[in-house]
Amino acid sequence: MKGPVAIAVDVMSGDRGPSVVIDAALECLHEAPNLELILVGDTEVVEPLVAGHGRADDKRLRLQHASEVVGMDEPPQQALRGKKDSSMRVAINLVKEGVAQACISAGNTGALMATARFVLKTLPGIDRPAIISPIPAMNGHTLMLDLGANTDCTPEHLFQFGVMGSALATAAYNIEQPAIGLLNVGSEEIKGNDRVKQAAQLLGDSGLNYIGFVEGNDIFSGRVDVVVSDGFVGNVALKTIEGLAKMIGGYIRQEFTRTSFTKVLGGISSPVLRALKRRLDPRLYNGASLLGLNGIVIKSHGSADQVSFANAIRIATLEAEKQVPKRITRLLESQLAKEHHE
Amino acid sequence: MKGPVAIAVDVMSGDRGPSVVIDAALECLHEAPNLELILVGDTEVVEPLVAGHGRADDKRLRLQHASEVVGMDEPPQQALRGKKDSSMRVAINLVKEGVAQACISAGNTGALMATARFVLKTLPGIDRPAIISPIPAMNGHTLMLDLGANTDCTPEHLFQFGVMGSALATAAYNIEQPAIGLLNVGSEEIKGNDRVKQAAQLLGDSGLNYIGFVEGNDIFSGRVDVVVSDGFVGNVALKTIEGLAKMIGGYIRQEFTRTSFTKVLGGISSPVLRALKRRLDPRLYNGASLLGLNGIVIKSHGSADQVSFANAIRIATLEAEKQVPKRITRLLESQLAKEHHE
Repeated sequence: MKGPVAIAVDVMSGDRGPSVVIDAALECLHEAPNLELILVGDTEVVEPLVAGHGRADDKRLRLQHASEVVGMDEPPQQALRGKKDSSMRVAINLVKEGVAQACISAGNTGALMATARFVLKTLPGIDRPAIISPIPAMNGHTLMLDLGANTDCTPEHLFQFGVMGSALATAAYNIEQPAIGLLNVGSEEIKGNDRVKQAAQLLGDSGLNYIGFVEGNDIFSGRVDVVVSDGFVGNVALKTIEGLAKMIGGYIRQEFTRTSFTKVLGGISSPVLRALKRRLDPRLYNGASLLGLNGIVIKSHGSADQVSFANAIRIATLEAEKQVPKRITRLLESQLAKEHHE
Repeated sequence: MKGPVAIAVDVMSGDRGPSVVIDAALECLHEAPNLELILVGDTEVVEPLVAGHGRADDKRLRLQHASEVVGMDEPPQQALRGKKDSSMRVAINLVKEGVAQACISAGNTGALMATARFVLKTLPGIDRPAIISPIPAMNGHTLMLDLGANTDCTPEHLFQFGVMGSALATAAYNIEQPAIGLLNVGSEEIKGNDRVKQAAQLLGDSGLNYIGFVEGNDIFSGRVDVVVSDGFVGNVALKTIEGLAKMIGGYIRQEFTRTSFTKVLGGISSPVLRALKRRLDPRLYNGASLLGLNGIVIKSHGSADQVSFANAIRIATLEAEKQVPKRITRLLESQLAKEHHE
């Protein structure tokens, strides 16, 4: 039996309001007996919603009041300085205080990153936290970072991302010696800029299972477990994936509803189309980790529905159970020890 | 009736050998009565293939001997200096001499770019040629550049890419005042690096229809005609698109062949699946332009089949008919005149 895990959930910051988040929280409590959830938000709003579900007396569900909410477009520094009692900040504080082992917010990424970094600090040896998420791939998924926290990265940052991604792949997804690839261009003329070349050197000299440069298509090929890039490239790739998947989904719908005949075909084929949809459902990939902090912080998509948000809670639970930040520190220390030893 | 257009075709450099290229050439000659093709390669190899088709006496089909072939992995500088009689070089020379109005090669991108740049030079006011290609989008396609020629770009380069893309969109695709977007990250925390911000300034001050920053998903959204980025980001996005489209195609095949029942569904649904396949067929997007040169150079995918290569010939024909390099120069001059005038 797994030990108890407490997760602080910012119920106020998502686009869809607290009720979707509470539904997801109750779903996760039901499936994980070791889970405790602390719902952070305006208790005047949250309490009646929880009572409405008849769960007000659930011992694994606690409420924590927070009087403010960070807006979706609020500048990070304003949120950080001006809203010290926001649901986002209070949830992160609970991690800092050790009351919760992880926190989740669907609020704005910039404010979440700035606040988490200010409150929790980065792990020793990590200069910059990075955003990482699983991306669907041929045989499962590929972890990809940084998805947008750092537009400009030094070779050292990219190396640290490799360590962080490797630690997460092993801790949370049981991959021994995960294959780490550095995202680069495939044109024959130019094989990347100096930053990427130097990062390749650092990764190649490390004890990580660095497999070399990979290209955009390798995100899906299954030959790499962790794809490392700076946050500019990673964010463009992520949004490109989201956009293309949506377009192709639209194409499939269009083609199967073009005529009465194809509509019938679509009806008959619905089990296949449903299976297809499941494999590409972005909701099952919701929950990006802000990796490199001295604490676990999970960012949910702002518009997450119940299925989406529940998935983010599962990721938070898994990372808390596996104590991912400790694993990162340990892996980084072993890398540095190796360097000194040589 | 359109005026005659002569295109030089490097028949030797693709992965599949000259016969596929010759088949594509004959297909295009058949559909475009104003087209003349100059097949460049070892005449000992090419002549019998053309004779085999019974087209040796076609007046719109000429052969031009070239004794060498650039290898797929050959370093650009080596190809440039060492193989002055390569099919690639001779095809580009024909453009330089005015014998052909465009050339096409399926050879290695680096060598093609280096040779084209050396022989043809860049247009006045253009510092760096860029690779541009149409990408399938919601309502047609989006032009995207640079797809990999320049990893590091200054704001001025990105501005010039905007001008080049705008000129191509108008000349070849009849889009008046094409909407130009600058690819950027969507995270709230960070809105791009200094390079992108300065390029946005230059584009915003120009007479182009610059619509601002766009994200990866906007490549497909239909709200932008031309997406501008540096070659590193553009190449990663392109390869990501290719990889994801391939994976989803594989998913569709898998799901429709999982059981005997779903195989039957796949059989019944085959008209829909074929329509779907056509909409995502990468062969119909084959043919990237090396834009910004004093001449038209089209790069075909190395592994292009007949359908693919024929599409590249059509793009070359269209750009030749529309005199794209002149249109770029004219648009750039009008931008600069506007600046001086202000």
